[in-house]
Amino acid sequence: MKIALAQINQIVGNFRKNTEKICSYINCAKDQGAHLVIFPELAVTGYPPRDFLDIPAFVDKNLAALDEIAHHTSGISAIVGFVDKNKQPYGKLVHNAAAFIQDRKVISVHYKTLLPTYDVFDEHRYFEPARTVFPVKFRNHLLGLSICEDIWNDDEFWPRPLYERDPIKDLISQGATLIINIASSPFTAEKHEKIRLPMLIHDTLKYRVPLIYVNQVGGSDELVFDGNSTAINAEGKVIAQAAVFEEELMFVDMANPAVQVPRKSSTTIETVYRALIVGLRDYTEKCRFKKVVIGLSGGIDSAVTLALAVASLGNENVMGVLMPSQFTSESSINDAVKLCKNLSVPHKIIPISTIFDVYRDALKEEFRGTPFDVTEENLQARIRSNIIMAFSNKFGYLVLTTGNKSELSVGYCTLYGDMSGGFALISDVPKTMVYELARYMNREKEIIPQNIISRAPSAELRPNQYDQDTLPPYDILDGILKAYIEDNKCTAEIIAMGYDKKIVHTIVNKVKKNEYKRRQAAPGIKVTSKAFGSGRRMPIAHDFMC
Amino acid sequence: MKIALAQINQIVGNFRKNTEKICSYINCAKDQGAHLVIFPELAVTGYPPRDFLDIPAFVDKNLAALDEIAHHTSGISAIVGFVDKNKQPYGKLVHNAAAFIQDRKVISVHYKTLLPTYDVFDEHRYFEPARTVFPVKFRNHLLGLSICEDIWNDDEFWPRPLYERDPIKDLISQGATLIINIASSPFTAEKHEKIRLPMLIHDTLKYRVPLIYVNQVGGSDELVFDGNSTAINAEGKVIAQAAVFEEELMFVDMANPAVQVPRKSSTTIETVYRALIVGLRDYTEKCRFKKVVIGLSGGIDSAVTLALAVASLGNENVMGVLMPSQFTSESSINDAVKLCKNLSVPHKIIPISTIFDVYRDALKEEFRGTPFDVTEENLQARIRSNIIMAFSNKFGYLVLTTGNKSELSVGYCTLYGDMSGGFALISDVPKTMVYELARYMNREKEIIPQNIISRAPSAELRPNQYDQDTLPPYDILDGILKAYIEDNKCTAEIIAMGYDKKIVHTIVNKVKKNEYKRRQAAPGIKVTSKAFGSGRRMPIAHDFMC
Repeated sequence: MKIALAQINQIVGNFRKNTEKICSYINCAKDQGAHLVIFPELAVTGYPPRDFLDIPAFVDKNLAALDEIAHHTSGISAIVGFVDKNKQPYGKLVHNAAAFIQDRKVISVHYKTLLPTYDVFDEHRYFEPARTVFPVKFRNHLLGLSICEDIWNDDEFWPRPLYERDPIKDLISQGATLIINIASSPFTAEKHEKIRLPMLIHDTLKYRVPLIYVNQVGGSDELVFDGNSTAINAEGKVIAQAAVFEEELMFVDMANPAVQVPRKSSTTIETVYRALIVGLRDYTEKCRFKKVVIGLSGGIDSAVTLALAVASLGNENVMGVLMPSQFTSESSINDAVKLCKNLSVPHKIIPISTIFDVYRDALKEEFRGTPFDVTEENLQARIRSNIIMAFSNKFGYLVLTTGNKSELSVGYCTLYGDMSGGFALISDVPKTMVYELARYMNREKEIIPQNIISRAPSAELRPNQYDQDTLPPYDILDGILKAYIEDNKCTAEIIAMGYDKKIVHTIVNKVKKNEYKRRQAAPGIKVTSKAFGSGRRMPIAHDFMC
Repeated sequence: MKIALAQINQIVGNFRKNTEKICSYINCAKDQGAHLVIFPELAVTGYPPRDFLDIPAFVDKNLAALDEIAHHTSGISAIVGFVDKNKQPYGKLVHNAAAFIQDRKVISVHYKTLLPTYDVFDEHRYFEPARTVFPVKFRNHLLGLSICEDIWNDDEFWPRPLYERDPIKDLISQGATLIINIASSPFTAEKHEKIRLPMLIHDTLKYRVPLIYVNQVGGSDELVFDGNSTAINAEGKVIAQAAVFEEELMFVDMANPAVQVPRKSSTTIETVYRALIVGLRDYTEKCRFKKVVIGLSGGIDSAVTLALAVASLGNENVMGVLMPSQFTSESSINDAVKLCKNLSVPHKIIPISTIFDVYRDALKEEFRGTPFDVTEENLQARIRSNIIMAFSNKFGYLVLTTGNKSELSVGYCTLYGDMSGGFALISDVPKTMVYELARYMNREKEIIPQNIISRAPSAELRPNQYDQDTLPPYDILDGILKAYIEDNKCTAEIIAMGYDKKIVHTIVNKVKKNEYKRRQAAPGIKVTSKAFGSGRRMPIAHDFMC
């Protein structure tokens, strides 16, 4: 039995394109002699459709698309993720479903049992879970169809299962001889290598059945899907492994599989780099932007953002804008210009000193007797925002913001200033990882001028200002932030890890106090286990300290 | 049996204050001879605690607070909402729980069965549902304890129940003689009068048992809780009704209840007005702001926002800033000044023309040959944002944005311009309702100058510009928006309601295209059945049209 794994990149709600792509992959699979072609979770609608699922017309269009796909499926069988209506007289209106199609007919429909409702996932918001699961006969196999989270609840693999039910166990107990899992499982650094793949291998070894895992690929708002579709035999050996971050139609012959030499796994920084490249490419494409514009300070964050944008979109689609003030050093300007030269990116220079002075003049009566403070610092960042947004408005560029996760965590950024823009490319990348990205991109030749990497980071909003005047060194900051944000530790636990008590309290307080800024932040690409945005939902008005 | 309903206003995560308040209400109830005092859902933590629930230290502090409350409860019994740990070896880590306390001991703990996961609610994200429910004996009654959503699933009241289980039915079948429901049920216009109260009455009549409903009160970020705690006898008659939007300790004698004369119900606009007042008061207080600043254009939105702020915080805590440009009419300035005079609010005037000219000069090389377009319009709004944010930074004011729901829906607003601010007071109030609020506030004397209400709305960002140049009349716009956003209708259905086809398509396209702006909007107060923000979660990168 030859099976095709269709690792595709869909667009939420574009039923015409999504259907065409599914049909064309069905054709390809058939042409190459596959008996069965398998598509990812919610391949018909794109994932995540979010609150479009509440719109009846959206569900109807998806059902019409599934009909069209079924009608197209002859001479081959297919498994296709879609949204089905819930026929029970109670509960959520729809199911997250997989159709098993043969000879132009939907033979059976399988519903997702376990609905992830944590981090970025909201599936209980929309879907009614399956009440039962059942395997389905196909050639010499009894297929156990499951959808994404269904396979993430093994009570031997996980110290504490999140759900009472285990649909994989149920399918095996009903005689399934091949487990199929269709997924829309987003990327986070090291997830596939350290969790997902070991878990899939664990399942095959536990039940001694082979497993086929088909994940989607590409970016959708904050999420990037890494693909990594995989087939594993009953001995827990990988027999097929699809590309990472790329569409692919991969074939596996279940009757005669060859164990694969495990692919040399990429470094963490390389996969994060690729996730950012793909996430930006798909966000711009799917939002119908062609070009991006980036404000360049001469610092590391904007340099890395620019270099990533060039790698993602090509230098012809990227523009840099320098907006020096009286506090900007010559070397910042030189470094930013050199960066643009290295990347063959055009740049503009719009000084802001005159504008800054005019504002200060307009406010001098009101602000008389007050010292130069964060007001004047923020004002500079906001003048730059106005200029970069003017470029966006006038020429249709998407503005990329350049803030990293460490800054966003502690509020070392200006709302309506450097936080202004449509996409916050590195907003889930900690500062220490921003440096790693710079070194990675410089591995063969100098793209990011060495001086940008070497010198002490500064916001240059007042004379002789350095990040480390108000923040601990970034390796310490990032350690505390990971413990607090990703691992949900309280201050006492973080201090017990060896961090300075006063620093820990200061940092945790800053994180809490700056929730209001993050509420208004642009979306960015999730690369860690806990990104701001839909993955972390905190109150603003609260009084909790721990 | 005398029961006290403690309709209180808590602060998320302030365990010290929350515990003190609960204990002081216990004292009061005891002093007045109550046998039992009942607190709202999650009274210990405040509601909604959101992702604090994922932090073990938060749950531990809440359990310690409950211990303290239990220890304090002698000579009276109490029912208190809190977060309990899930003792099962699988599932979410916590339950949404109610403790039944007698003589300093927690006699029984009752878990929430039905976990709302739609609109603003995310309860499946955090809580494991109850597996079973059971009544508990108290004096001559068998109490059926339930938590909020548990009572919202009657299969006779609702055309399609959202859940399979009905914990109220279960409690009744086990002999409950008094249903108690503790709630954190947020306000939306007309919800209590048209849905909640009729539903509660329906339940008492169906089962012929009395019911006590205790709701929290006050604002928490986007949500305002209206209270409206109620006791209803077995004949469906209201025997006690608590205040709306105010804390109250209300008593009801179950042995000798007096049927209440139904309170003269407020008009819709009056309750919306009060919701906005309370929501703003609590947001500023709970975020520890004292004063707010508002940019005044001379238009209706900023005028209504200012008048609401004065009603909420007092004129001594409100400041208006006028920022006229070359396009601002004399009458706009005069009207705004008159408004401030009517409300005894200080105002500042900072003209922006010079600043605007300096920007244009700085950009003239780059923008040479391009016409005056939305770029220059947005620039004016963004200059104003910089000035108002400078006031915020310098003096610690909270900036209130003044955009209404109609504008936010179609993107008739400038990101980082008039959208800048910490709280978007009227962002869920449709434009037609903004006018209603103005007329309501003017019912006794002119607060908002009549000219502001009468004249055609204009953004005044270019000469002779009126909202209705690019938008349909607001009553038509608001009708289409309600159908699309609140009722999830597609364009064909909205056209079938009698609206012009071209207008409907234009408006729906605008709503979809401007999702990116709303993603970065400040939080505002939910007053309709579907507010932007956590209640409506849409993708930005998509391609769905219907």
